[in-house]
Amino acid sequence: MSNVKPYDMCWLDYRAIKVKDSDLFRTICIVDNKRSLEVPIKELKHFIKYSFKINPKVIKGNFDFSKYVLIGTIDQIKDIIKEADIWERKINNEGFILKRVNEKGKDILIITAKNIKALVYAVFKLIEKLRIGEELDNLNHIDNPASYFRIINHWDNLDGTVERGYAGNSIFFKDNKVVISERIKDYARLLSSIGINGIVINNVNVKKKEVELITHKYLKVLSRLANIFWDYGIKIYLSINFASPIYLGDLPTADPLDKRVSIWWKTKAEEIYDYIPYFGGFLVKADSEFNPGPHVFGRNHADGANMLAEALEPYGGYVIWRAFVYNCMQDWRDYKTDRAKAAYDNFKPLDGKFYDNVVLQIKYGPMDFQVREPVSPLFGGMEKTNQILELQITQEYTGQQIHLCYLGTLWKEILEFDTYAKGEGSRVKEILKGRIFNAKYNGFAGVSNVGDNPNWTGHDLAQANFYTFGVLAWNPDKDISKVVDDWIKLTFGDDSKVRENISYMLLNSHRVYEKYTTPFGLGWMVNPGHHYGPNPEGYEYSHWGTYHRANYEAIGVDRTSKGTGYTLQYHSPWREIYDDINKCPEDLLLFFHRVPYKFILKSGKTLIQQIYDLHFEGVEEVEILKSKWSELKGRIDDKIFERVSKRLEMQLEHAKEWRDVINTYFYRRTRIPDEKGRKIYP
Amino acid sequence: MSNVKPYDMCWLDYRAIKVKDSDLFRTICIVDNKRSLEVPIKELKHFIKYSFKINPKVIKGNFDFSKYVLIGTIDQIKDIIKEADIWERKINNEGFILKRVNEKGKDILIITAKNIKALVYAVFKLIEKLRIGEELDNLNHIDNPASYFRIINHWDNLDGTVERGYAGNSIFFKDNKVVISERIKDYARLLSSIGINGIVINNVNVKKKEVELITHKYLKVLSRLANIFWDYGIKIYLSINFASPIYLGDLPTADPLDKRVSIWWKTKAEEIYDYIPYFGGFLVKADSEFNPGPHVFGRNHADGANMLAEALEPYGGYVIWRAFVYNCMQDWRDYKTDRAKAAYDNFKPLDGKFYDNVVLQIKYGPMDFQVREPVSPLFGGMEKTNQILELQITQEYTGQQIHLCYLGTLWKEILEFDTYAKGEGSRVKEILKGRIFNAKYNGFAGVSNVGDNPNWTGHDLAQANFYTFGVLAWNPDKDISKVVDDWIKLTFGDDSKVRENISYMLLNSHRVYEKYTTPFGLGWMVNPGHHYGPNPEGYEYSHWGTYHRANYEAIGVDRTSKGTGYTLQYHSPWREIYDDINKCPEDLLLFFHRVPYKFILKSGKTLIQQIYDLHFEGVEEVEILKSKWSELKGRIDDKIFERVSKRLEMQLEHAKEWRDVINTYFYRRTRIPDEKGRKIYP
Repeated sequence: MSNVKPYDMCWLDYRAIKVKDSDLFRTICIVDNKRSLEVPIKELKHFIKYSFKINPKVIKGNFDFSKYVLIGTIDQIKDIIKEADIWERKINNEGFILKRVNEKGKDILIITAKNIKALVYAVFKLIEKLRIGEELDNLNHIDNPASYFRIINHWDNLDGTVERGYAGNSIFFKDNKVVISERIKDYARLLSSIGINGIVINNVNVKKKEVELITHKYLKVLSRLANIFWDYGIKIYLSINFASPIYLGDLPTADPLDKRVSIWWKTKAEEIYDYIPYFGGFLVKADSEFNPGPHVFGRNHADGANMLAEALEPYGGYVIWRAFVYNCMQDWRDYKTDRAKAAYDNFKPLDGKFYDNVVLQIKYGPMDFQVREPVSPLFGGMEKTNQILELQITQEYTGQQIHLCYLGTLWKEILEFDTYAKGEGSRVKEILKGRIFNAKYNGFAGVSNVGDNPNWTGHDLAQANFYTFGVLAWNPDKDISKVVDDWIKLTFGDDSKVRENISYMLLNSHRVYEKYTTPFGLGWMVNPGHHYGPNPEGYEYSHWGTYHRANYEAIGVDRTSKGTGYTLQYHSPWREIYDDINKCPEDLLLFFHRVPYKFILKSGKTLIQQIYDLHFEGVEEVEILKSKWSELKGRIDDKIFERVSKRLEMQLEHAKEWRDVINTYFYRRTRIPDEKGRKIYP
Repeated sequence: MSNVKPYDMCWLDYRAIKVKDSDLFRTICIVDNKRSLEVPIKELKHFIKYSFKINPKVIKGNFDFSKYVLIGTIDQIKDIIKEADIWERKINNEGFILKRVNEKGKDILIITAKNIKALVYAVFKLIEKLRIGEELDNLNHIDNPASYFRIINHWDNLDGTVERGYAGNSIFFKDNKVVISERIKDYARLLSSIGINGIVINNVNVKKKEVELITHKYLKVLSRLANIFWDYGIKIYLSINFASPIYLGDLPTADPLDKRVSIWWKTKAEEIYDYIPYFGGFLVKADSEFNPGPHVFGRNHADGANMLAEALEPYGGYVIWRAFVYNCMQDWRDYKTDRAKAAYDNFKPLDGKFYDNVVLQIKYGPMDFQVREPVSPLFGGMEKTNQILELQITQEYTGQQIHLCYLGTLWKEILEFDTYAKGEGSRVKEILKGRIFNAKYNGFAGVSNVGDNPNWTGHDLAQANFYTFGVLAWNPDKDISKVVDDWIKLTFGDDSKVRENISYMLLNSHRVYEKYTTPFGLGWMVNPGHHYGPNPEGYEYSHWGTYHRANYEAIGVDRTSKGTGYTLQYHSPWREIYDDINKCPEDLLLFFHRVPYKFILKSGKTLIQQIYDLHFEGVEEVEILKSKWSELKGRIDDKIFERVSKRLEMQLEHAKEWRDVINTYFYRRTRIPDEKGRKIYP
């Protein structure tokens, strides 16, 4: 774990720090079984060496020191720490306790958990606390993850490309081979340090080559990869193709109700678990965007998912089934079909029909990771089904890591959204904690923004999105300003100007991006295919179901009860609020309503004037972001300063292009000029 | 040359025919040197066997038969046929004579030419005459190709893909290897039968892998490929990357004025001609769409082309330099730059500066193979430069071989276009014949529509485009209805209903396609990237310089002398005609003018109403095309009938989509309804 690497270590880039209790760390005591504690001890020692310049001793079976760190499972430390017995009830399998006690005059810092894997989380939490400057005096930190699944989804392909990846190539694959490298271990460390417990290593679009990942050809090397992650408490998962029995040439069908198929998958599961005992399970994109699924065989999603679930059940594996199902061959002339309704329409009737080890993975909004969408009504709708909230850390529609667009603020809004499924307080975050419905296996999936760029994420500040995902998945109640501030301190150190300016930049960036691109929940005005840059009608006549139907006087799709009826998928009072053009939150106005350009907003401005205003404001605010950054010259590592400066310059240019294209588009449609006479290209 | 192939033989699919003179073909006499006549004799015998069911005898040095076919060069037959001496002056190197004489009571059909290679053209011409039912009684056919270059351009990549290919994969390349197959020989036969004399086998966009085609790694196998084509009088050419000396790691520069670079290319030329003595030369896309060129080194196109020309000159090779140069990173907010002007602006100042063995290859229009463009002003502009007219046989913007779009009618219009460069009569076809200016090495390039599909071209009727290109390149004066009728007879036989209906379909199809897509020379309303299907603003805010700038009241770019000044690149009277909105040919109205939707056309209709009308008409006419085809059931090979029927069905569906998208687009902009109240989606 040298610190001189060809790549950064993000928030784990340890620097020397001074804390008054550093003497405590000269001695690390353990009860027995040093091997099982290898990883947490190694991480702790590594930190102590780099940050305190101390070379700690690890002592087994002797606790005769005046001050020390005690690390071990509760079972292991019970004999030394009496109250450890009581603690057991306070934590779950992945939870941990950091506690400073005075036991018979001895100053002991205890790191404990029920489970050995959880000790790694505990160590990383302790390190974080020290590095953000928390005092240890009265340390008594009991921590449990809020949700069961905290998974990163990689859309990596075997050839090394990354679908929607903006940080270079895959860290897992190259030229159809699995890569085992030092970087993989460092990645596991980064993930573990923010509480991740699962990782899907391949793209949900499982193409010809990738089907083979579940065969002998790849399983051996995958078992090595899996071990690296499992050291850090992280299970690997694989995206599978539902038609694998056909593609691999074994069967003429993949019908989930065909005996041969279910036996095939059972044999396959056995084989996989032979290689990877701690395999997490399958992620499945079925009957979606040209990926095969049970519909091909006249079966439903429950049939498909349950068949796979049965195969994984003996080994404790899960089937994560994506809810991203819609008609991707819609005719734009079909005004009745509404893609926004599709996921709910497809899955609501199946609620209660899925096995216990099936989890439905639901994108945050009903469309596809636009800069703003309403929260998917499935979260309040699937009362008897395990649910995973899918967030996109990678910035597909949000600036592709060229634009600064911190997503934590958006995610926080999503988590705080109250579905009213069981009355007030039925927030998404509570559903994911398992507190609203009975389903136990809920959680978070984040589509990775990581690639083989030296800084992992392309844009250095996009590391904050990666970090925030893990932190919120562990604890969705955490204050977002605090998350941001912690990340800045961990990454750039404790310089108040740096903290102030970067906090400002991150916390404002999503709203800024929204302003100069597609405000009001409009979305989809991007170039088709690659999804970068403005193209107001790029998707207007396509088969993807993404239309705004702008004409000379109005824009937007009427998704109210008088329109496509999408609002009816929500519980009250949302269905009434969204249904009413005067009550609907304005930042979702064009998602729910067809609105004349001259409609008067709450501000008293017309819609069209507000569109112009937001676009001009957006660009001005990028200039502010840029100046905030430039104030940090000399306070930030030069290399990082330059990299980010360059991206901010590109962002400004591209923001201007967004502003001009969108404003021109509306001006050319409406012949309504900007009230303030600013430049709109004719 | 078995007729049972895994692929069709297009217009060379010989069937049994009855002609009164078939007895003539029982004996083929030659003077000497059988080997040199191997190919023409083989072709002739093959035809005789299949079509007359005769197994002809080939006799050397004995002419004592009452009737026979005499084949040989003029030099060879001089002793037998006295007047052959006079014929020599009537033909050029590639010309030939087919003549029936009565010499001392003997009935002799003479096939002769100055050059052995031209005898192959002669044999194919004789076969064609017989197959389309021409009488041989007074045969006296003297034939010379109108132009020097008749070249097919393949946009094939080493990995087997074909850029803008719609008929499967490459017939030349697969998995970065050159494929030598029976099909290659058949392809040479097809090409030779329509008078082609050159073929560029690789894509003008020469990427990393393809740079290596001019190295030892590939030259050996390319020499085998070249021999196959040279048997049929066809030279192979290679597209090269101007920066090859750098990409191949030999030099730090590709500056054409750097001595090292010119020596490098001279050595390279020597090496290539060592392998391929009849190598045609280089095709170069330089300083165009991200391909490097002399501009990179501060030099001009003449510097670049002449340096290469000097290297090829000792071997009789040519540099074909593409004029497709423009700023492909235009800002849509830049209203002054006009892509249409770019080729002329780039090359006109260099007229007279190119070496004798440099040829400028000019796309037919100033933009890029849209369904209709004005003829490029370069044809009338480059008085001292060899010119090749580049046509696109492959249907990139014209329906991608899903839509029937016969291009012969368009090409004929282009060829007949009078540039007025030297007064009336300075037609494009006369320039290409070398009759207007002094430059000698002119001709035709056609971007191939051929791939590895069993029928070569995807759409069976697209074979007509392939055929027509060759026929017009050989003889641009030929009547297009005759070309079509010949092709039908050769391909489908002599059924009058078949001839009538397919003639109707082909001759009307381009206009029909134009109607339901982008009439008035508008162009570019396609999906970006793949260029299939409608997307009215797909290119509106892009960097490609292709804008229509439609707003609430008008559409089109003003390219007149009061606008971008593009019209000034034409000679009078075109500059005045195009300049005047009331004189400009209506089918180019929106190419040259910005026109209000309510502008009154010659018909008395408004522009917008005519746009609606044309789109409704276009679809109705596709229905007619479809019914014309369905009338041929039973008269056409079932397999072909079904294949074409399926494509016509797709065409109809997609034509409706074009109609609806374009009409909706304009209706949403203008709020002007269709006068006739037909369905326009709101």
